[in-house]
Amino acid sequence: MARILTGIQSSGLPHLGNLLGAIQPAVELSRNPDNESFLFIADLHSLTTLKNGAERELYVRSIASTWLAFGFDTDKNVFWRQSRVQEHAELSWYLSCFTPFPMLQNATSFKDKSEKLADVNAGLFTYPVLMSADILLYDANIIPVGKDQKQHLEMARDIASRFNQLAGEDVLILPEARIDEKMMTIPGIDGQKMSKSYNNYINIFLPENELKKVIKKIVSDSTPLEEPKDPETDITFKLYSLLASDAEIDTMRQNYLNGGYGYGHAKQALLEVILDRYAEPRRLYNYYMNNNDELEGILKAGEEKARVIARRTISKVRRVLGFGS
Amino acid sequence: MARILTGIQSSGLPHLGNLLGAIQPAVELSRNPDNESFLFIADLHSLTTLKNGAERELYVRSIASTWLAFGFDTDKNVFWRQSRVQEHAELSWYLSCFTPFPMLQNATSFKDKSEKLADVNAGLFTYPVLMSADILLYDANIIPVGKDQKQHLEMARDIASRFNQLAGEDVLILPEARIDEKMMTIPGIDGQKMSKSYNNYINIFLPENELKKVIKKIVSDSTPLEEPKDPETDITFKLYSLLASDAEIDTMRQNYLNGGYGYGHAKQALLEVILDRYAEPRRLYNYYMNNNDELEGILKAGEEKARVIARRTISKVRRVLGFGS
Repeated sequence: MARILTGIQSSGLPHLGNLLGAIQPAVELSRNPDNESFLFIADLHSLTTLKNGAERELYVRSIASTWLAFGFDTDKNVFWRQSRVQEHAELSWYLSCFTPFPMLQNATSFKDKSEKLADVNAGLFTYPVLMSADILLYDANIIPVGKDQKQHLEMARDIASRFNQLAGEDVLILPEARIDEKMMTIPGIDGQKMSKSYNNYINIFLPENELKKVIKKIVSDSTPLEEPKDPETDITFKLYSLLASDAEIDTMRQNYLNGGYGYGHAKQALLEVILDRYAEPRRLYNYYMNNNDELEGILKAGEEKARVIARRTISKVRRVLGFGS
Repeated sequence: MARILTGIQSSGLPHLGNLLGAIQPAVELSRNPDNESFLFIADLHSLTTLKNGAERELYVRSIASTWLAFGFDTDKNVFWRQSRVQEHAELSWYLSCFTPFPMLQNATSFKDKSEKLADVNAGLFTYPVLMSADILLYDANIIPVGKDQKQHLEMARDIASRFNQLAGEDVLILPEARIDEKMMTIPGIDGQKMSKSYNNYINIFLPENELKKVIKKIVSDSTPLEEPKDPETDITFKLYSLLASDAEIDTMRQNYLNGGYGYGHAKQALLEVILDRYAEPRRLYNYYMNNNDELEGILKAGEEKARVIARRTISKVRRVLGFGS
């Protein structure tokens, strides 16, 4: 039984790029009976960049609702908000005393920011330590990460080794990275990678009329309606291809090549396929967003489960360090 | 009513220098009915330099026993181990996201170590943030600090201001430093400042025969027994002067000046004055060191009190940041 641990960013609303690139594959993976998925909303990390409390609350609720809407099984797995388990911050302090300063200085994520140090807060600098605590607290075996996170995972292994060396036993389990090489890149409405920071994303949970407005903004060329169009270069077609069935995709491709089929038609088809394929997640998402007590109940139950495991680890760590247990 | 907060280092056994320079004056101060003394053993901080858990446990017990032996009133005041109140580490993470990286880089305590960065751990770098959390968690008004800690206190004020600015209200109370200009310097047995790091200290809690051995090692010049001696330059005389009555000091001074009085005699007098003046603390210290359950009980009661206050602050901070409460 492999324990797979994933932290979910919570500095924005989930969008189609997150769904297709991360959430849906992770939910799929979590269904495997040989796996145990540990999934947490990394809201402590979000404080390094997002200071507004009301926004954070909204994003966290929205992300939790999304995972539930896509069928993440919180009975089989463990699902919690990082900020509700105090042991994350506690272990982070202990580990920081086993983390050489130059290791953090050499982190690519820090180097990228080192030209404007005045804008860097200490949390941004030490966040690989908190990330190590997130992982090591739960004896996680496998951490699916993008290539940009590989270095942080090596730090977690290094810090854990240093701690185990002091302890004289393997108190902390060294995690393995699973690098997702073929991580899908989903185009945004302007053709760049869909991302909160580019503000080019599609929030599939919007009410139909608002969703329609966003889809209308998808960039296209100025080929007149009657002329043939190139499906391979068009953004609407690309997005449609990620959601529609093979037969539907073939039909649209033919429509493009034949001419007499406008981008407006394609956008309407994209809207319809979103509304159709995501009908149940949309319903569930709105349900959880409107029933906060129920959402809180699910999260609190997950936090109880997470806390039991986190406390077991912290207790071992404390004993080694002479902090009682 | 002023709330005075003091963190006590726990990286060594308490010695005569600590007693005369810090512990006895602080116990005196804590008796003032207008003050409320918050005193914690900074064992989380000790992890930045001391990794051995068994040593840490011994030092913490020894320090706690010392304060109790000198009559620190744990009913009137609050006395706890930092590591037993999780909110210290938690607030420290929140505050780190309000601490500009360059502020920590400019800390003198860090600059002093920056030539050998490989030996600096991340905890040493961020420890002014944890120290800010220690202070701000308890709404402390006054922090008695040595000159070398003044900069850290300014950081705590700066970090608190940044947080309050975001909150739009004074959630965190800005502490005032009370700089102790006339901090007594106690000579060690070699004449340098008495310090754990110089290994020149007198542990007054040692059994009589061991204490005698340490006192015998006090450095003196080679003036023969029968000749007059200079009391002003002699280490044994200096130490004796810190403990004996005015009449006793005068007698010893005369003995030095008259000659026929050896350093061995002076050392014997010093041993006797230690055994006499510290008879009750020695008894109590050994009592607490031998009755760990009782010591634990006193500390746990203090930790309950500390936790109530710490949780009140953390709850306000969490609300502002959107982490629930």
